Amino acid sequence: MFSLTSTKYLNERTIEALLRRAQLFVNQDYSWKKRATVVNLFFEPSTRTSLSFQMAAHRLGLTVLDFSVKNSSVQKGESLIDTLQTIEALGVDLAVIRHKEDWPSMVAGMDCELSLVNAGSGALEHPTQALLDALTMQQHFGSLRGLNVTIVGDVMHSRVARSNLHLLRTMGANVMFAGPNQYKAQELADVPWVDMDQAVAQSDVVMMLRIQHERHENCGGISDYNKSFGLNRDRLTLIKNSAIIMHPGPVNRNVEISDEAMTDSRCRILQQVSNGVAMRMAVLEWCLQGGSNEKLVSA
Amino acid sequence: MFSLTSTKYLNERTIEALLRRAQLFVNQDYSWKKRATVVNLFFEPSTRTSLSFQMAAHRLGLTVLDFSVKNSSVQKGESLIDTLQTIEALGVDLAVIRHKEDWPSMVAGMDCELSLVNAGSGALEHPTQALLDALTMQQHFGSLRGLNVTIVGDVMHSRVARSNLHLLRTMGANVMFAGPNQYKAQELADVPWVDMDQAVAQSDVVMMLRIQHERHENCGGISDYNKSFGLNRDRLTLIKNSAIIMHPGPVNRNVEISDEAMTDSRCRILQQVSNGVAMRMAVLEWCLQGGSNEKLVSA
Amino acid sequence: MFSLTSTKYLNERTIEALLRRAQLFVNQDYSWKKRATVVNLFFEPSTRTSLSFQMAAHRLGLTVLDFSVKNSSVQKGESLIDTLQTIEALGVDLAVIRHKEDWPSMVAGMDCELSLVNAGSGALEHPTQALLDALTMQQHFGSLRGLNVTIVGDVMHSRVARSNLHLLRTMGANVMFAGPNQYKAQELADVPWVDMDQAVAQSDVVMMLRIQHERHENCGGISDYNKSFGLNRDRLTLIKNSAIIMHPGPVNRNVEISDEAMTDSRCRILQQVSNGVAMRMAVLEWCLQGGSNEKLVSA
Repeated sequence: MFSLTSTKYLNERTIEALLRRAQLFVNQDYSWKKRATVVNLFFEPSTRTSLSFQMAAHRLGLTVLDFSVKNSSVQKGESLIDTLQTIEALGVDLAVIRHKEDWPSMVAGMDCELSLVNAGSGALEHPTQALLDALTMQQHFGSLRGLNVTIVGDVMHSRVARSNLHLLRTMGANVMFAGPNQYKAQELADVPWVDMDQAVAQSDVVMMLRIQHERHENCGGISDYNKSFGLNRDRLTLIKNSAIIMHPGPVNRNVEISDEAMTDSRCRILQQVSNGVAMRMAVLEWCLQGGSNEKLVSA
Repeated sequence: MFSLTSTKYLNERTIEALLRRAQLFVNQDYSWKKRATVVNLFFEPSTRTSLSFQMAAHRLGLTVLDFSVKNSSVQKGESLIDTLQTIEALGVDLAVIRHKEDWPSMVAGMDCELSLVNAGSGALEHPTQALLDALTMQQHFGSLRGLNVTIVGDVMHSRVARSNLHLLRTMGANVMFAGPNQYKAQELADVPWVDMDQAVAQSDVVMMLRIQHERHENCGGISDYNKSFGLNRDRLTLIKNSAIIMHPGPVNRNVEISDEAMTDSRCRILQQVSNGVAMRMAVLEWCLQGGSNEKLVSA
Repeated sequence: MFSLTSTKYLNERTIEALLRRAQLFVNQDYSWKKRATVVNLFFEPSTRTSLSFQMAAHRLGLTVLDFSVKNSSVQKGESLIDTLQTIEALGVDLAVIRHKEDWPSMVAGMDCELSLVNAGSGALEHPTQALLDALTMQQHFGSLRGLNVTIVGDVMHSRVARSNLHLLRTMGANVMFAGPNQYKAQELADVPWVDMDQAVAQSDVVMMLRIQHERHENCGGISDYNKSFGLNRDRLTLIKNSAIIMHPGPVNRNVEISDEAMTDSRCRILQQVSNGVAMRMAVLEWCLQGGSNEKLVSA
């Protein structure tokens, strides 16, 4: 079993190998193929991420089995460990897991050879998103070292913010947060919390987070949010010409990001989606081959 | 991008090319293959049509990705255009879309290279149904020119009736409607609205529409409907021996169509289902090859 | 059409052929392949069984189409026979069906060439479960003849108990039941109903059934059940060293089976899961090849 659960445990060399491999996949060279079997275990729905992993598996020649969590034994009270051991006994090689809780800690110490890839765990981790974001930055800037990256929005509830923070620091980028004060994350107090307009003006990367309407109805109206922290028309003029705009999607148009920003030449949102497929190919391959950097390096 | 959204925009030559190609697929010759990727985007559920497109894609060697609309970003308020641009960025080649609204007008002018196939839009269009119906008629009559086709039932709410009307007129058939007066469609007033028994007696094709119980509970009981407009045992004796009986399915037995009609030798309902797979193969191929008639013609 | 709906109609020779073929699949030899198409029609949800059939189909090189019963015409009132005839007309070769009713009797006499495999029908049958259980016993004991098998729990509502009973008797094993008296099945009164502790001590196979919380809330608390009929730590010491412990899954840990039993060396639960894939490969192959024993025998 080799798994990817967090960007915390990835060192610089592994990240660089994955970036290199994903770039090869962007360039359409996927020679490595094996009829391995992947299951998407999405306890929290996400069409976008699920489709991206399905496409990555398809391009690698892997088979994706359909697992409907709603109909599952999990609903009947089966533990996650029992579910994963059953999936392993069925002959599945790798499970892609998304869960509203910190699922990696729920399966710690499990006796299981199945590879596990984290597609989102609570507000803690979404490592393939951070990796695809890194690929997108690297394509524009050549290297992540020394980049000023501002992550804007509901940092407290964001798995994207945390996974990116770990990875960007490992790669030598400078991370700042901005957003409403009530969205500060206590345990991330060592990350600079900066003024929105200043941050935007000084950043190489402006990464907007999605606002979850369902979660934040009581913290100011949508137009207030757009005015204070959205990437609206005025703020777009503050961003450096050499900078790029990112968002993990799906976007709330004219809440955290305006129509103008979506069509701005600095916007990389659809490129992030494309890079997601390539990076997930690299990650699936890496896990199925047992996580050996050497194979990735020589690829 | 080449898309099929309506039978209105299909000319006679294109329709004939699709019919010829689908007939080849009926005869089991599908030499053309490409590992393209298709997504079924069904905002309105339909197992029958979804399975038919899945089977068509499978027979062409295409890959179908699983998109659960219920779990999708669309539910989070993402626009259809943003969804389709994301799907394109994921590397998908073609989306099959069913929606309770007129989705083609929702994406008009979109900047997107994805091919789109309409599997049902509001009460307006269901072009692959009309095409497979045409194939079924052609198999029996050789040509559609001059055929008398009566479409019976809830015309007002029927996408099948409208798509068939456009296509049948293009191909030189005569279309009549019959059914309860409250099901007349205002904008189709130029189509003859005829007496049920007379129509049945004079038609080459009797096409029954499905009654939506959920929609029409307050317009007369089911047995009343069967007596007045259903294809019951008595009415079956009125139909010409050379005529055929059609229904897009799923049927309400003994409402719009009786058990006797289902097993009548003139009934083509299961043949329509089989033809649906062949016609959808022809349509998928046509869209993925860029809509060139020439390829279809020389096939 | 060749179908598997019940273990009642399987003779010893057929069962032995299936066991032999499944064992070959366990040993990884699956030379037979055909691009046939399978649909999973699960009117009652079951991720575990659905995944097992998906994996079996994948290993045989078959294609599995996605049929969402929730979105289906069946919901619109279409009869099961009309649904199956439509599925046949679509070109599907085999349907795997699970239903809370006795679906085989619902389709008796149907004019349809589709092969049907029963993945669970009411409380009556789950034949592939019984076949995989037989494979698991055979792997340990060499033969089923003369084995003492005790099935413990809610026999009344258990399709697993009934399918196993038929098959085990055909193969010459002795079947006993144990459990709360209110779970006795009237029509199975000829099967010995035995004391739990005695049964466990004398059995070669102790097969625990899953307790359905939702069904049995009013017949004693969970800890009472575990004490009286669960495979708890005390009872584990009563079981013969040469015996094996089985459970169709998913388990309720510390209700019908304890954590200790799950890790006991006599426990075969995960092996049952693995054998399930091999046996379903044997069954799919058997049905698609027209049920000829000879092919299986000479395989």
